[in-house]
Amino acid sequence: MCRVTGEDSVSAGLVPPDARTLLGVLRDAGPLTRAQLAERTGLARTTLTARLETLLGAGLVAPAGGAASRGGRPPGLLAFRADARRILGIDLGATHAVVGLTDLAGTVLASRAERLAVADGPHEVLGRVSELARSLVAGSGRPWTDVVGVGVGLPGPVEHSTGQPVRPPIMPGWDGFDVPALLRSELGVPLVLVDNDVNLLALGEHTSTWSTTDDLLFVKVATGIGAGIVAGGRLQRGAQGSAGDLGHVRVPFTHDTPPHGDADADLEALASGPAVARVLREQGVPARDADDVVELARHEDPAAVQALRQAGRDLGEVLATVVNLLNPGVIVVGGTLARAGEHLLAGVRETVYGRSTALATRDLTIVPATSKETGGVLGAAVMVSQHVLDGPAEP
Amino acid sequence: MCRVTGEDSVSAGLVPPDARTLLGVLRDAGPLTRAQLAERTGLARTTLTARLETLLGAGLVAPAGGAASRGGRPPGLLAFRADARRILGIDLGATHAVVGLTDLAGTVLASRAERLAVADGPHEVLGRVSELARSLVAGSGRPWTDVVGVGVGLPGPVEHSTGQPVRPPIMPGWDGFDVPALLRSELGVPLVLVDNDVNLLALGEHTSTWSTTDDLLFVKVATGIGAGIVAGGRLQRGAQGSAGDLGHVRVPFTHDTPPHGDADADLEALASGPAVARVLREQGVPARDADDVVELARHEDPAAVQALRQAGRDLGEVLATVVNLLNPGVIVVGGTLARAGEHLLAGVRETVYGRSTALATRDLTIVPATSKETGGVLGAAVMVSQHVLDGPAEP
Repeated sequence: MCRVTGEDSVSAGLVPPDARTLLGVLRDAGPLTRAQLAERTGLARTTLTARLETLLGAGLVAPAGGAASRGGRPPGLLAFRADARRILGIDLGATHAVVGLTDLAGTVLASRAERLAVADGPHEVLGRVSELARSLVAGSGRPWTDVVGVGVGLPGPVEHSTGQPVRPPIMPGWDGFDVPALLRSELGVPLVLVDNDVNLLALGEHTSTWSTTDDLLFVKVATGIGAGIVAGGRLQRGAQGSAGDLGHVRVPFTHDTPPHGDADADLEALASGPAVARVLREQGVPARDADDVVELARHEDPAAVQALRQAGRDLGEVLATVVNLLNPGVIVVGGTLARAGEHLLAGVRETVYGRSTALATRDLTIVPATSKETGGVLGAAVMVSQHVLDGPAEP
Repeated sequence: MCRVTGEDSVSAGLVPPDARTLLGVLRDAGPLTRAQLAERTGLARTTLTARLETLLGAGLVAPAGGAASRGGRPPGLLAFRADARRILGIDLGATHAVVGLTDLAGTVLASRAERLAVADGPHEVLGRVSELARSLVAGSGRPWTDVVGVGVGLPGPVEHSTGQPVRPPIMPGWDGFDVPALLRSELGVPLVLVDNDVNLLALGEHTSTWSTTDDLLFVKVATGIGAGIVAGGRLQRGAQGSAGDLGHVRVPFTHDTPPHGDADADLEALASGPAVARVLREQGVPARDADDVVELARHEDPAAVQALRQAGRDLGEVLATVVNLLNPGVIVVGGTLARAGEHLLAGVRETVYGRSTALATRDLTIVPATSKETGGVLGAAVMVSQHVLDGPAEP
């Protein structure tokens, strides 16, 4: 499911498979003594010692200093060291790029953001973000050998197993392009994992805010519309890694919500940023793009408020189906249009709570995203961190 | 996610949590020696011995006799013993009940089937299936103490954590009924797990036929329409256990597929067995129910063939959205209407391959179900088996 040429040796080099469980205990439980580790894992003393030596040698585990708040430091307390390595997270949108350097927990330590058109093509775009990445690592005081991997989010369908975009609608020149190969050559980091940007936003939001919720749906409403699905506590990519494509589904119309616009249109043609801006222009309101729509809505422009609410209803018609199908505990709505306040969400809530089944909506929460500019970078780093610490996703 | 009153002590009693990994190695790898087990698990010899004693004492592991095909039997070879315990699987449909006795691998050893109306209410229905269950155990030559659990599939939404139906449309008298409590009292088996019948068909089909496919969608088209979702290799029930409700979603209509019938109708009102029978009656073809439709289609009645193909297209309109969303590797179509040959599937394929994205349909297989009468019993038994051997689903 999650193989990238050349990565097996890389991840195996950081944490050998047989030491992952041991490291997992330290990551989950916090600092422990060797005796506690032996008790919790049942490992033979010689095995435990050998595996700890590996982890200590790699710097992933170190004597813990911070736990000595009461009665002095317990001897031999060991802890996971998230600071041991660095990860580069790259988040590309239609018109922006954010590059961040994180630790193994995904904490963003430094970042650079630029306006940058993904339509300029892979060579120009990846060349520029590589420059930003190099400047971040150069300024970090850490050697390149500390960078264990690069995570990349792209605004289109990605075959996760190869890291290649597949017919991405808003990324001319990127179809089938070998993103990992170019970044490996630019940055000299063997492990490069690529995914759809919305999957990574879902992963980041789940890790930072909703880690106790097993079933989460993240919906991004911007130039395009897409979803990231966390089910059973794990990001679900589907068989080819294309899960979450909401933008190209048809919107169900009924007698009380007759078709407006082109009845053959998909959700993106009705509820995306460009679609809402077009609706406003047709009414004589000057709105070039999603940013203009958000600005108008912030000033309570009646046409913009009404158009956002209708976009929310159209989105809600599709999400009502998704809620019946997946029964998520929370729907997080992000992307440019979600920044316009409650208007979009009000339309979503109105339709979803009215249309989905009683059981599926009983404890359903629909909220705006909390992630800021570096939300995509966090998700990209979490993808890499899970890969090198937990191992590749099971086949 | 998966708690049932009184079950923790039960499952803990069968396989203590710290012995589950060891048992899992034997289940996956087949017969192994103690030395091989020590090598594969890294367990200390005393720990390994203690855990093996537990499993040997419970009869779940035993010296293996069957592996001696070449050069005599290796000394001390140990194997998982699926025959060590029994599971009762109960599959209730709208108008039938199947009760089966299985081993820990879900193999159905004996079963009883009856026509039985679920609308008769929980006391009458569960009383009758309890009689069938008692006769199966009595005829098995095994004591009741060998029965580790009862798995039940119901034809409606079930809150899996409590085992209670929630507003089931075709089950009058069952809303909020404590199914586990009644069966515990009738059968004296503490562990009773209940789920939607379609989830269990998905689990059974995945276990028996598609275990190497991580992402599977099972769709049942009968009196109702529902789906069971396997994503990332695991059955996904959602936050309240209601995932998979396809019957109550709206069907998207477009210019080239204009609404037929009531445009406010949900999928079940268009493509279920009763809906197709009604369409035929409106054309003067005598069809009382789904069985009649299947019989007509088997004789290539043109009206029945056309109605089934249209039902397949309507189902396909909804599945096109699901495919974009979940990107399954396989869609398995079961239920009464799927027994009518290829007509229903032809309509499904026509629409899904035409509407869903190229990446999501590239390697998508759409096939009829292989499970026979005892498919639901197999799934119910697998649910119980996973619970007692692997432990309750993680929170």
